Formats: sequence, structure tokens, C-alpha cells
Amino acid sequence: MAAERRKAVVLLSGGMDSCVAAAIANQSHRLALLHTSYGQRTEARERRAFEEIADFYGVKDRLMIRLDSFVQIGGSALTDRKIAVPEFDDSAVHASEIPITYVPFRNAHFLSAAVSWAEVIGATAIFIGAVAEDSSGYPDCRPGYYRAFAELVRQGTRPETHIEIETPVIAMRKSEIISRGLELGAPLNLTWSCYQFEDEACGTCDSCRLRLRAFAEAGLSDPIAYRARVTQ
Amino acid sequence: MAAERRKAVVLLSGGMDSCVAAAIANQSHRLALLHTSYGQRTEARERRAFEEIADFYGVKDRLMIRLDSFVQIGGSALTDRKIAVPEFDDSAVHASEIPITYVPFRNAHFLSAAVSWAEVIGATAIFIGAVAEDSSGYPDCRPGYYRAFAELVRQGTRPETHIEIETPVIAMRKSEIISRGLELGAPLNLTWSCYQFEDEACGTCDSCRLRLRAFAEAGLSDPIAYRARVTQ
Repeated sequence: MAAERRKAVVLLSGGMDSCVAAAIANQSHRLALLHTSYGQRTEARERRAFEEIADFYGVKDRLMIRLDSFVQIGGSALTDRKIAVPEFDDSAVHASEIPITYVPFRNAHFLSAAVSWAEVIGATAIFIGAVAEDSSGYPDCRPGYYRAFAELVRQGTRPETHIEIETPVIAMRKSEIISRGLELGAPLNLTWSCYQFEDEACGTCDSCRLRLRAFAEAGLSDPIAYRARVTQ
Repeated sequence: MAAERRKAVVLLSGGMDSCVAAAIANQSHRLALLHTSYGQRTEARERRAFEEIADFYGVKDRLMIRLDSFVQIGGSALTDRKIAVPEFDDSAVHASEIPITYVPFRNAHFLSAAVSWAEVIGATAIFIGAVAEDSSGYPDCRPGYYRAFAELVRQGTRPETHIEIETPVIAMRKSEIISRGLELGAPLNLTWSCYQFEDEACGTCDSCRLRLRAFAEAGLSDPIAYRARVTQ
């Protein structure tokens, strides 16, 4: 009989990237799935996506947490109702400027929760679906950031704790993530990416446009419903 | 006219170490005070200490956040009601073993909130009253941990953001912290350290015993009320 697989905490937002990260983790680890609601506009819809993906993989180890501090702190269009979610602006995506949907230092909060949980349940890896190039230029989506976080974990946990930080899709284009997800049978139809709406995806925010473009590049049709589908 | 002082976020739990860290920060910076309730047994009492210290320093920039995830995650006597707070055990304090009051990876959550807030309000430093030697052997209270966190901040914030991580009491003994606090006029009478009770300090938990011993070493009497004062 094979030895029992080690456990991994996967940060599963409910979006495509984290869904494919879960599919990759699932090849080598038992899954423990962590979701964070932080006052983002579409949090109920993302939580539903989380639950449906967790059901798909038959995962019992689920942790759903709330972080109210981002709403109190503000400063991002995702959590501050006074700042509008911008329409897609192609020129800005690969520019050096940080978009207004950036939530300051967000991933550190998510990863910290993952480490605390991993240490208690004995997980030996954390998977996060961060994407460096293809995403929106957020500073906390780059490889150097995850190397720094891995060092922080090494320094800040019990001596007997060993937790790897895995970023399996960080170097992929969004279209590659889709292809990899399909290879692995990831339930992309259950994922949610829109920053604005919860019933049908808007099709016009940064996140929707990047997703639609990526499906087009992969030569596929996105299985979720959109109000508008602009794929040029 | 002197230039306006730069702003610093101080993590102010309401205990002595963070109170003295605030007193030190107050010499060079305008204070912005951050408090976190995370389901610790004495959270209401600590919040009161925070408010009273903030009033003492006349600070308007206050952020009080809640983190429910520690209670959900468990694994520590501070946040898990199924685990008892241990009585002081002298032999364990400087042993290599991590005490059961350790909350896994706790300070990363606090620091992450401080960085998010600092980035939004334009603070250029974060002060935290971590103590390496004299505290309870928590892995996230050592200098290497803060160097790793500073690197994470450099990697994970906007290019124009520069935030120093300051640990002004990390190398001090608790008795030195008390002396330094008194020199700076820090309101130690308003601080709270007990892990167990909220009306009078128990005098018997690790935190009370270390505090009482430190006052004794400094040749002073602790101004707060105790149920029992064992200062051997």
C-alpha cells in the first residue's frame, strides 16, 4: 500500500488560476482548501465558486475566513466602494504602474493564514495561483516575493515545521493556465473571475477581459455566462 | 519651521513592550496605532489598554481590526478554549521548546495589516514591540524573522513605497524595557499583560510572572492590580 500523501493548503479564491493550482496540487498532495472573504465586491459569488470546486474535488478540509481589515483600510477599487472598478485599458496592463484594483499587500494576509493553518494541521506545502506576467502587475505576484515569503516561513515557524511555498502557474500565460487546467480536468466552468458582478460576468473589467482573451488565445470558448463578450 | 514628522504605524497590543515601542516611535514619528483582536482570552481588556494609551498620546490615527481566523484555526492556548493557559514553568522559558501559548505565525498577520495600512496612509515605518530573549521563545520574535519580513515588504509593495520595520526593544530584557519606558514617560500603568483575566491580572500565567519579575529586577513595583503577586 502506498504511503499516505502529504497534505497541502491551497489558497482557492474561486478564480481560474487558483483552481488550476488546486488541480496541480491534487496530483501530489491531499488538499486542504482555504478561502478568504475580504469585502471584495463579488465575495459571495467567489465563495460559491470555492465551495463548488471543493465539492468537485471531494475535499473535507476547508477553511473559510473573513478579513475585514481591507475594507477598513481601503485604497483599492476591489474593496473601497468610493473607488470605481476601471474598464479594461490595454495600455495599462503591461505598464509599470500599479492598477487601482491592487489591494495593498493582500497576498501576505492570505499566505499568513495559510501558514498558520498549515502549521496546525501538519501540511507541508502551500499552493498559490499567483501569475507574474499575465496578471495585472501587482507587486505581490512576482517570484521574488514568494522567495522572500518562503524565507519568512522558515524563520517564523516551529523548528520542526517545514512548509514549501509553491507557485505552479506563476510563469504561465493565462492561456497556458487554461490549457493545463483542461489537461488536468480542472472544473473551470465552476470558477469566477469578474471583479464587478455576481450573476453574470461583466465582460468589461480587467479580470474578465484578460480571461476572455486567454480563452480566445487557447482556441476555446469560456464556459461561464457573460453580459458582454468582447474578445478582440 | 521644522518639516512635518514622518508617520509610523505602531502595533500596539496594549502590553508593556508595545507601549514602550510606541513611546520610542513617538520621539521621531507621528503615531498611527494599530490594534488587533484575534479572539485572545483577554481581548476586551487589551482593547481598553490600547484606547487608553492612544488617548494618552493624543493619537487620532487608530485602526482596530478583528481576525477571526486564529480562533477557527486553533492550536494555541491563547485562542483555543480547549487548551488551558499553563501556569508559569521556569524551566520552560528559556528551553528550546515552543510554548503552548504560541499562536502559529501570528505576527505575520499583524505586520501584514500594518503594511497594508502604512501603504495607504503613507507611513514610512512600522514599529513592533517584539522581544527576542526575554519573551517566551516564539519563533516570530527573533531578529532574523524581522529581516525576512523587511525583505518581503520591499518585494511586495509599490515601487515608490518604502517602509522600515523597526524592532526597538527586540534586544532588551524586560526590566530594561520598563526602565526605558519610565525614562520616556510611557504610561505603563495603562498596559495589560495577563493572558487569563481581565479585571485583575492573575499573577500566575507566563506573561504575568515575566512582568512581575522584570519589575522586581528593575527595583520597581508594578502599578497594575494583581490577584496574586509571586515575585520569587
